[in-house]
Amino acid sequence: MIAKKMQSMVANSSAIRAMFEEGNRMAEMYGRENVYDFSLGNPNVAAPKEVKQAILTLLEEEDPVVLHGYTNSNAGYADVRESVAQSINGRFDTHFEGKNIIMTVGAAGGLNVALKILLNPGDEVITFAPYFGEYRSYTANYDGVLVEISPDTETFQPKLPEFEGKITEKTKAVIVNTPNNPTGVVYSEETIQKMAAILEKKQKEFGTDIYLISDEPYRELAYDGVEVPYLTKYYANTIVGYSFSKSLSLPGERIGYLVIPDEAADSRDLQAAAGVATRILGFVNAPTLQQKMVAKCLDAKTDISYYDRNRETLYQGLLECGFSCIKPEGAFYLFVKSPVPDEKEFCAAAKKYHILIVPGSSFGCPGYVRMAYCVSYETIVNALPKFKELAKEYQKG
Amino acid sequence: MIAKKMQSMVANSSAIRAMFEEGNRMAEMYGRENVYDFSLGNPNVAAPKEVKQAILTLLEEEDPVVLHGYTNSNAGYADVRESVAQSINGRFDTHFEGKNIIMTVGAAGGLNVALKILLNPGDEVITFAPYFGEYRSYTANYDGVLVEISPDTETFQPKLPEFEGKITEKTKAVIVNTPNNPTGVVYSEETIQKMAAILEKKQKEFGTDIYLISDEPYRELAYDGVEVPYLTKYYANTIVGYSFSKSLSLPGERIGYLVIPDEAADSRDLQAAAGVATRILGFVNAPTLQQKMVAKCLDAKTDISYYDRNRETLYQGLLECGFSCIKPEGAFYLFVKSPVPDEKEFCAAAKKYHILIVPGSSFGCPGYVRMAYCVSYETIVNALPKFKELAKEYQKG
Repeated sequence: MIAKKMQSMVANSSAIRAMFEEGNRMAEMYGRENVYDFSLGNPNVAAPKEVKQAILTLLEEEDPVVLHGYTNSNAGYADVRESVAQSINGRFDTHFEGKNIIMTVGAAGGLNVALKILLNPGDEVITFAPYFGEYRSYTANYDGVLVEISPDTETFQPKLPEFEGKITEKTKAVIVNTPNNPTGVVYSEETIQKMAAILEKKQKEFGTDIYLISDEPYRELAYDGVEVPYLTKYYANTIVGYSFSKSLSLPGERIGYLVIPDEAADSRDLQAAAGVATRILGFVNAPTLQQKMVAKCLDAKTDISYYDRNRETLYQGLLECGFSCIKPEGAFYLFVKSPVPDEKEFCAAAKKYHILIVPGSSFGCPGYVRMAYCVSYETIVNALPKFKELAKEYQKG
Repeated sequence: MIAKKMQSMVANSSAIRAMFEEGNRMAEMYGRENVYDFSLGNPNVAAPKEVKQAILTLLEEEDPVVLHGYTNSNAGYADVRESVAQSINGRFDTHFEGKNIIMTVGAAGGLNVALKILLNPGDEVITFAPYFGEYRSYTANYDGVLVEISPDTETFQPKLPEFEGKITEKTKAVIVNTPNNPTGVVYSEETIQKMAAILEKKQKEFGTDIYLISDEPYRELAYDGVEVPYLTKYYANTIVGYSFSKSLSLPGERIGYLVIPDEAADSRDLQAAAGVATRILGFVNAPTLQQKMVAKCLDAKTDISYYDRNRETLYQGLLECGFSCIKPEGAFYLFVKSPVPDEKEFCAAAKKYHILIVPGSSFGCPGYVRMAYCVSYETIVNALPKFKELAKEYQKG
């Protein structure tokens, strides 16, 4: 018998993954060009050319014993951590040093490290629906309790009054994800300022430290010149979890970092513990070749115009079909209102047209569906007539 | 305040790591050539040339969207898993398929996945002293209890009568590590057969399943033609955790695999759960470029003659100094008897000569010290006169 805790985790195993695997099965049956798979956030844009060039240079110039060896510190190569810190400082007018940076196995690895070092059993972690469903598992890994704030389906900004009411003395962390998966919404500076003020107030009221964990895999994907606030500047107890998965189109390589600012409470303990947690959780260190690679690619950019065209085309096309959806300012997802209350029924209907989309229930927000538009432009163009047929089913009814 | 569980983990943080970091500090002060750092199992042999060639080929020939993208299954690329299975079958006359292989973030990642899917809180995990100290943390991660079998300091083979006596109905797993870190001893076929018979008997007695987890990062490092038995052939409930860290000299790249045979109890559930655990622990998947690389390097070999020369030279040199030590048949460690009962005192004395070695207490075996001889040959040659001076301190006493 597998572990009891794992049984429910397997049972609730990601609907996104299931859909993605279904998409691959359907592609084998019908041909990939006849399947419109909007299920997974797996970028369809190739990594920028700097990535390949950096790896080639490293293979030629670096001593392989160093390039592929254990890093001196489990938190990563000292020079890589320093480069990352300077890059953040240059962009956001912050004052980090290498010690503030912990290289991680992607943002998922980083979030696990952060929760491992913070949570005692029963501690509460607040997040805002709709949210990336894996937060539930990450929190459960360390016997924490995930507390959801219900969605504001008008703006998809956090509902701050409900947030304030649900903070207790057991609240240890708050996870925010902006640009947001699954809505594409960017939390405004005003939202962040208000959220920080609430957290300060509640910390004082309870005499506790509440850490704001900013999960930022989509930071670089923001459209129309929208600014994504850097949260450490608004609230001292902030931990940033970053990933290069989307910004450099390499989600499989598992490379990202945590930022633990000196201003955070118990920052030195947290920094030391993060290194130890990286080791004992089995990561040991972020993959070394990729650490050195990202240090050479901190200014490289994915082709955001590609996603932007997809965004505009799919968004406008869906509106023309009669669907309704908030226009995303970032990431590569559309969060579309299901024409029927049970959005799983809608997802099943879409599958008849070989359209794969993910139920909002997976994100704590039933009645909506997520569409990942990090696909080829052709997929979107070819899917739109199918969406039209799908929409007709509901107009008739 | 960091999590309570992490506080003790930080406090007990790896003495090996601390020593390694100390070594780097000393190297800066005295010059690397004047520091004899035997602390960490970080190979000093460059990766075989096939590794670089495989990466270059992959960068030229593979679609970067696939090469750096999420794998279809969290367990890894289907073709890579199949290649690994066939390679094992060819070498050990086993009958695995791709579904039996879960690609992991090194052996440490694999062991965490295995324990995550097996352990309920309070479950017992048995291991044999001396053992890799991280097993204690890995077990604690999932609220298991590590049960030590005391060392047989004559042979460093497992003490089987004590083992039999300590198996209870709470025993969920047994971890073995052969070739062994820290002794270099290879568990004999006779040992394995007897261990399997005890496990079968106890499973029947308690009506439980007890999984034998074989931690095999040193499988390819065996000297003098010694055979390392493949444990799935002796006991059905075996899970193998393998790493390419030492066999291909790339411990920083974090690539390995688990083998979950169909013969193991609840094998299908375990295989499915291992994929889910890989995802929710934050690994998501083993690094993709390195997955594809190892599939091309399954027949590549590290230069074992390099380690063998180091082994012979250090072993003979230490004997000549008057130290006593079992001659290792595998891995790249010597486990040397401390001339004084408190081996930490001995380690401190060694440091005066710029010799860095790790106390046996870190491996559940005080009174001994571990020396990692995966260093340059020159380090060994130059260290021997220092060891001679060190030995003299104790001969006088």
